[in-house]
Amino acid sequence: MLHKINQKTNLMNIAVLGTGAVGETIGSRLIALGHTVKMGSRTATNEKAAAWVSKNGSNASAGTFADAAAFGEVIFNCTKGMVSLEVLQMAGAENLSGKVLIDIANPLDSSQGGIPVLSISNTDSLGELLQRSFPDVHVVKALNTMWCGIMVNPRMLGGTHHTYLCGNSTEAKQTVREILQQFGWTENEIIDLGDITNARGTEGILPLWIRVYTATKNGAFNFGIVTA
Amino acid sequence: MLHKINQKTNLMNIAVLGTGAVGETIGSRLIALGHTVKMGSRTATNEKAAAWVSKNGSNASAGTFADAAAFGEVIFNCTKGMVSLEVLQMAGAENLSGKVLIDIANPLDSSQGGIPVLSISNTDSLGELLQRSFPDVHVVKALNTMWCGIMVNPRMLGGTHHTYLCGNSTEAKQTVREILQQFGWTENEIIDLGDITNARGTEGILPLWIRVYTATKNGAFNFGIVTA
Repeated sequence: MLHKINQKTNLMNIAVLGTGAVGETIGSRLIALGHTVKMGSRTATNEKAAAWVSKNGSNASAGTFADAAAFGEVIFNCTKGMVSLEVLQMAGAENLSGKVLIDIANPLDSSQGGIPVLSISNTDSLGELLQRSFPDVHVVKALNTMWCGIMVNPRMLGGTHHTYLCGNSTEAKQTVREILQQFGWTENEIIDLGDITNARGTEGILPLWIRVYTATKNGAFNFGIVTA
Repeated sequence: MLHKINQKTNLMNIAVLGTGAVGETIGSRLIALGHTVKMGSRTATNEKAAAWVSKNGSNASAGTFADAAAFGEVIFNCTKGMVSLEVLQMAGAENLSGKVLIDIANPLDSSQGGIPVLSISNTDSLGELLQRSFPDVHVVKALNTMWCGIMVNPRMLGGTHHTYLCGNSTEAKQTVREILQQFGWTENEIIDLGDITNARGTEGILPLWIRVYTATKNGAFNFGIVTA
């Protein structure tokens, strides 16, 4: 079901921060759509980033977090939420300034064993923390409520399901909406919740997500809003 | 779509604690299904409870929280989460002991204005607080993730959607499952998450629920788990 977009407009230089499954999946999908992607990590010679580049052709490259952020017109935060602030500090405010940061991380703390808990929640969120820390970056929280395979290929599921946008810049949210539509999300499946404080809502469902995954033994699901 | 169950088995004496929209809706549906219901409130002469009784026929009655709890084989907690512990204390441990308590409340704190926040969350939950406070009551968290109209008539929505059970007693969860099926939930729509600590997950989606309601201007929705 993956499809290459026809129009050559809206092809961008995009940074993907993080070399885990989320970063690889997002990065590869962006490459398949025709974008040019630099994957960022702590060092310029990260083995996982190099392996990803070798699989993804001439539009793929890798570098430090700062290299990637400087390169990207739009930046995906695909790092673990517990280190996201540190990663953005390594990327450098000067490389992030004025850009759209798509924050798909969750502040899950696994350090106590058992089911992870949120390190920030209810009256604050990771999205807000990142926005406060980098006031001239346009942080848009999106896609953080599902497994990464679904983020980039929503049509793999057998029905209508939803993702959320929140952020303080309407223009930035429009940019993210266009990328989500390139991924395969329909207009009606993308719900704009308002400003970045609404990340409290979308990050807040991770504790239920984990438990549904545990109970059903299937991570390839998303929550859909079912109406009359 | 409301239907009366045919079998006369499994008809019970049920307590509904709370006279708000949730209590009224749950109580009326239970009466329609053939159960006998006593609605409990702070005083034996509550006007809303009396009005509910007058609309619901001879199987409906009202009394104090203690009267209702003493009457019920199964007890629905339909109070606001911020007062639920106090209400159960008024109901009296001796009237609750050994019984199934279906907790559909959420610990939403509106006292600060703006969007309500959870007064207990992430590393604890209202369900757990009630279970800790009344160790020999079989607390089952259920139905707290949607508008009350959908709780008792899930088929009003146009598709498959889900509700969750959690609690420490398998037998109590089976009792609740049977009541949910009388309400119209299908077997596959009822997801058992495990013990009562999983209430952290189901209570944790209220901040998103409120925001989806605000964004879509429609409270008549539920989240469904969409798979491949």
